Amino acid sequence: MPEYPTGIGTSDIDSISLLGHDLAGDLLGKVSFGELAYWLATKRRPTPGQLRVFEAVLVSLADHGFTPTAIAARLTLYSAPDSLQGAIAAGLLGGGSRFLGVTEDTGVYLHNVVETLGETSEWTDARWDDLARATLTASAGTAIPGLGHPVHKNGDPRTPVIIDIAREAGVKGPHLELFEAIGRVHPEILGRTLPLNGAGVAGAALADAGLPVELLRGFALLARTAGIIGHLAEELQNPIGPDVYREVDGNAVYRKSVESSD
Amino acid sequence: MPEYPTGIGTSDIDSISLLGHDLAGDLLGKVSFGELAYWLATKRRPTPGQLRVFEAVLVSLADHGFTPTAIAARLTLYSAPDSLQGAIAAGLLGGGSRFLGVTEDTGVYLHNVVETLGETSEWTDARWDDLARATLTASAGTAIPGLGHPVHKNGDPRTPVIIDIAREAGVKGPHLELFEAIGRVHPEILGRTLPLNGAGVAGAALADAGLPVELLRGFALLARTAGIIGHLAEELQNPIGPDVYREVDGNAVYRKSVESSD
Amino acid sequence: MPEYPTGIGTSDIDSISLLGHDLAGDLLGKVSFGELAYWLATKRRPTPGQLRVFEAVLVSLADHGFTPTAIAARLTLYSAPDSLQGAIAAGLLGGGSRFLGVTEDTGVYLHNVVETLGETSEWTDARWDDLARATLTASAGTAIPGLGHPVHKNGDPRTPVIIDIAREAGVKGPHLELFEAIGRVHPEILGRTLPLNGAGVAGAALADAGLPVELLRGFALLARTAGIIGHLAEELQNPIGPDVYREVDGNAVYRKSVESSD
Amino acid sequence: MPEYPTGIGTSDIDSISLLGHDLAGDLLGKVSFGELAYWLATKRRPTPGQLRVFEAVLVSLADHGFTPTAIAARLTLYSAPDSLQGAIAAGLLGGGSRFLGVTEDTGVYLHNVVETLGETSEWTDARWDDLARATLTASAGTAIPGLGHPVHKNGDPRTPVIIDIAREAGVKGPHLELFEAIGRVHPEILGRTLPLNGAGVAGAALADAGLPVELLRGFALLARTAGIIGHLAEELQNPIGPDVYREVDGNAVYRKSVESSD
Repeated sequence: MPEYPTGIGTSDIDSISLLGHDLAGDLLGKVSFGELAYWLATKRRPTPGQLRVFEAVLVSLADHGFTPTAIAARLTLYSAPDSLQGAIAAGLLGGGSRFLGVTEDTGVYLHNVVETLGETSEWTDARWDDLARATLTASAGTAIPGLGHPVHKNGDPRTPVIIDIAREAGVKGPHLELFEAIGRVHPEILGRTLPLNGAGVAGAALADAGLPVELLRGFALLARTAGIIGHLAEELQNPIGPDVYREVDGNAVYRKSVESSD
Repeated sequence: MPEYPTGIGTSDIDSISLLGHDLAGDLLGKVSFGELAYWLATKRRPTPGQLRVFEAVLVSLADHGFTPTAIAARLTLYSAPDSLQGAIAAGLLGGGSRFLGVTEDTGVYLHNVVETLGETSEWTDARWDDLARATLTASAGTAIPGLGHPVHKNGDPRTPVIIDIAREAGVKGPHLELFEAIGRVHPEILGRTLPLNGAGVAGAALADAGLPVELLRGFALLARTAGIIGHLAEELQNPIGPDVYREVDGNAVYRKSVESSD
Repeated sequence: MPEYPTGIGTSDIDSISLLGHDLAGDLLGKVSFGELAYWLATKRRPTPGQLRVFEAVLVSLADHGFTPTAIAARLTLYSAPDSLQGAIAAGLLGGGSRFLGVTEDTGVYLHNVVETLGETSEWTDARWDDLARATLTASAGTAIPGLGHPVHKNGDPRTPVIIDIAREAGVKGPHLELFEAIGRVHPEILGRTLPLNGAGVAGAALADAGLPVELLRGFALLARTAGIIGHLAEELQNPIGPDVYREVDGNAVYRKSVESSD
Repeated sequence: MPEYPTGIGTSDIDSISLLGHDLAGDLLGKVSFGELAYWLATKRRPTPGQLRVFEAVLVSLADHGFTPTAIAARLTLYSAPDSLQGAIAAGLLGGGSRFLGVTEDTGVYLHNVVETLGETSEWTDARWDDLARATLTASAGTAIPGLGHPVHKNGDPRTPVIIDIAREAGVKGPHLELFEAIGRVHPEILGRTLPLNGAGVAGAALADAGLPVELLRGFALLARTAGIIGHLAEELQNPIGPDVYREVDGNAVYRKSVESSD
């Protein structure tokens, strides 16, 4: 009979233990939800600086308006109002490569370089710029994650704020340094100037805040869960689902497929 | 062409607005993730007391060990490691009536009574007890949500702590008062003594903290998302999925169904 | 150590057994997918007549054009093209009470009456009409599932065809008889004339074909899976997701919530 | 205002059109569910031979006993019995790279070679063997999809049956020819003998039957939907979810994570 090891939680008749602490006595009212989420994912309690960056990044990722995922969640609630969990799940299932993936992709892209470096705390901007040039050159021909935004073409307003928060919190590290350097030098390499986007800086900041890059998509999804709940709360009161359905269905045009042989 | 109204977010080339505030300037680094989640769901910024209760309740609901939902999420990651969003969604889909529903059911049960009351701030415990007796009597023959726990038979350790936090935060109100009164008087009515469970007190506390009862399941799901990410982080490093699969598959016994006619 | 009983499948080094039959020797190429789906759900091999009705009903339910579920599946694929299973799951999650629930609701509504009857094979239409009048009168004030259609106001073209198929196949039974009688007598009781819709007749026909009413939603979802795959195949070649997104996002209007206190 | 083109379905007050045909008059009772599923995915009506192979492959993929996905679906139903669609969706979400992906991976692997060939109908086995040697050599160092099985080490019983069905149906083509040749020559190249597995032959057969390789995972998921409904039907009558939960939770052992710094 196998044992099932876990470092998360256990309970007995009188107590509940979470992460090795007494839930009722040590954690309730003493840690924020953000702090617990960090701790559960890493098994390390965040430093105050790490927590400050983590909460700021979650706030930055929580909502982006009527994204495809928010629309899908609202349509699912309209169609199946008896299952709030189904509507949330439908919204999260859009959290893949195209939209929510940028945070993860940027973190992984930077981390693949950063993990090869030694101590970098004394590096100058010029040295980071050299590394960024080499990194971009090695990626020639592929899209650089975290660069570019369909709307904020002059600069994503989240980016400098998150970098400032990380600096003030004392957790700005090699991922953000390399990301900023990419922001400085990419016009020389790519021949055009693109903004460092907010999803990308989120990935860099989370990595510097000590979160494992293989879970970055998970944190984007956690943040987005709060946003989806906001959309579903609004959908319950002031639905758009019926209008979206009517608009798409009412403007459907039948096109016999050219490849149809029948 | 319809318009799609929303009070959540908008953006233009230079700014992102969330809940009527400038995301970068007014929110990042200034509100916690818990605060934003409350605000998104209600369109009201929580008072410090409401936020303190909300964060504590989210912490109390984040994990319950190897629940069926945590096991389902881990098995899904094992089977489809390429889609973290699918594993999280699978875990949330178990957030229905049997497990995560208690929070919502308790909140709704209490709220159906509370919304018929006028001003109750001067009520004595004796008056709440009378109301609890009438409420329980009216529910005769049905299970009372929030009462009873399969493990914590002598009392759920979360319950008094959450009530204390709500009292200290100044948000203890009629839902928690009625819930406590049910805890005091139910032995007279039901003929046996059951603990007030942590999922139930969570529902009562969230309702007193100003959150709409029709969304209580959503907050339980938000909290559980953090727990599921913790389980998936652990599954990536120290998986139990293969053992669960081997154990169930290896101990399968074929039983020809008695109703089979073939 | 528990055993896990199942009547579905087992395998050993040389063979795979499914439903007590050798998969490779007895089933492959000898049963249709529809037949296997019926058999898996009921543990009974369908008669040819039951199978004919089951396949026809699945065909009738497979697609309904740009439903909210089809749109949600397409938006999810657009947002997360790396996970076809997530897009299918998102589509199915809309299979709840409002849209796909009619089949189940109608089957359950009829079955609650039918299971109280004895032998009905000799009943006249007049006797069914009397029962239908009593059934509708007992349901006064609630919506009758299976009655009415937003588009096919003069009659749903699927309804008579499915009833004919069931009659020819020899499986027309009390659920369809009662459903037809409701179609005949409801104007007297309700004061207006509504069509018997295709989702409702599907529920009645599946029940007469021997399928358990508690699983009717499942068969609607199985049918819809084929429809969703069709929509996703089309989305891969000729996507509408980007246009839906652009249309909704581009026509978003910010409305400060009246209840906002901030 | 955009138009939303589709070649699937349209309807008006009197009729429903599906794939350019009148649903009620031309399709109900005249095409099997399998035939409609093929047609929806490809916009081509299958030949009788293509349909025979398609139905046989769906039957072969419908169930594999207590897979992680079946267990996840059952646990989700146990936890949220109010949402059958959620339990089905949870089961499908495990249809990713590790388990259900083999069908797709094998089809894609073979198709990448096959699409570079011209006319092959006159090719001898020896010529296919040469191509298989070259293909395997080019893939040196990577796992060959469709080769090997954890249980059926002497040969998967489904494989020869599906190949025979394809041959008899007249649709055996280059994907199955190359797959068989890989079965013959791989011991020379890999230095060990592995069975051609049933998931792999399914991918090859579907490709030869005219189905697009980018959708093969979708057909595996359609087939599995029927299997999951069978598992959920069984779970409703004879549940294993509670035992799985009790077994895992009861054998949990707390292990303080070595990386924990707190």
